[in-house]
Amino acid sequence: MPGNILKVDSFLNHQLDIKLLYEAGKEIALRFKGAGITKILTVEASGIALAALCGLVMEVPVVFAKKHQTSNLDADVYSATVESFTHGTTYNIRVSKKYLASNDRVLIVDDFLANGRALLGLTQIVREAGAELAGAAIAIEKGFQGGGDMVRRKGIRVESLVIIDKMDDEGNIKFRD
Amino acid sequence: MPGNILKVDSFLNHQLDIKLLYEAGKEIALRFKGAGITKILTVEASGIALAALCGLVMEVPVVFAKKHQTSNLDADVYSATVESFTHGTTYNIRVSKKYLASNDRVLIVDDFLANGRALLGLTQIVREAGAELAGAAIAIEKGFQGGGDMVRRKGIRVESLVIIDKMDDEGNIKFRD
Repeated sequence: MPGNILKVDSFLNHQLDIKLLYEAGKEIALRFKGAGITKILTVEASGIALAALCGLVMEVPVVFAKKHQTSNLDADVYSATVESFTHGTTYNIRVSKKYLASNDRVLIVDDFLANGRALLGLTQIVREAGAELAGAAIAIEKGFQGGGDMVRRKGIRVESLVIIDKMDDEGNIKFRD
Repeated sequence: MPGNILKVDSFLNHQLDIKLLYEAGKEIALRFKGAGITKILTVEASGIALAALCGLVMEVPVVFAKKHQTSNLDADVYSATVESFTHGTTYNIRVSKKYLASNDRVLIVDDFLANGRALLGLTQIVREAGAELAGAAIAIEKGFQGGGDMVRRKGIRVESLVIIDKMDDEGNIKFRD
């Protein structure tokens, strides 16, 4: 789509291809086998399905950060501010302090990694909780937007199932080998 | 919690107890066995995990209605307006026309049923698509708020795994047998 928008709503962020996400979950579990993960952290809404299927395979609970203030979220939260390039806005993500602890070893799971702002926000929440960050698992990384490499340079392990190195308005997509 | 708020964020709508949700998914699949479901419809954000696990067991794709306008949602959508009693607001839910078709047989899945407004909105979207509604599966129904019975009186099959008939500010909860 024009404007570097990759249309994935047929399988990843509107309609969900559950079989595919389950296979993705199994692959992520394999890559983080032995890493001692105790909790998966994602952000609403489109990260939840993949995170849930990872949680099923890895047998750990999932916590999703909330983007929207709701009356039933605790007042006592870890929070971070995230800039969204896609939507041209800034938003806060929040996790109740009850659901991340300093003895947790956290895997961040998300459907997308582009500029890396959401991922940085999630890593900030893990740090605030005093928990250990095992790494991040991403379904699709838009490599040409640089967020993945920026996060990797900070020493964070990022495993993306697919990395797109180039795409254009005509729909040509070049994947990283 | 005061104000008829049932706190379920330790397992259902912030932290997710994936094993429990998977068992719930299996039970829902059993109840709708033979109903010819081709698609599961839910609404972001807290319905997604349960819907994904139902979709895994039932081997059908999941579509989640969007509550928030995003730049990558198609312009051509089915939509409905929903009044939220919990949050004191009104919002629109939207599903791209590409992901619901007249030959679909749809199971609506959601974490909660209270006043039934979200469920009615989802049934309206199924009707607009010309699809067939097989019914609705709910994790927790607040029976005393009447939404479930209101929807059942319209002839819609509603299967709730847990129905709460009474609760008070002291945390006493009476389940329906």
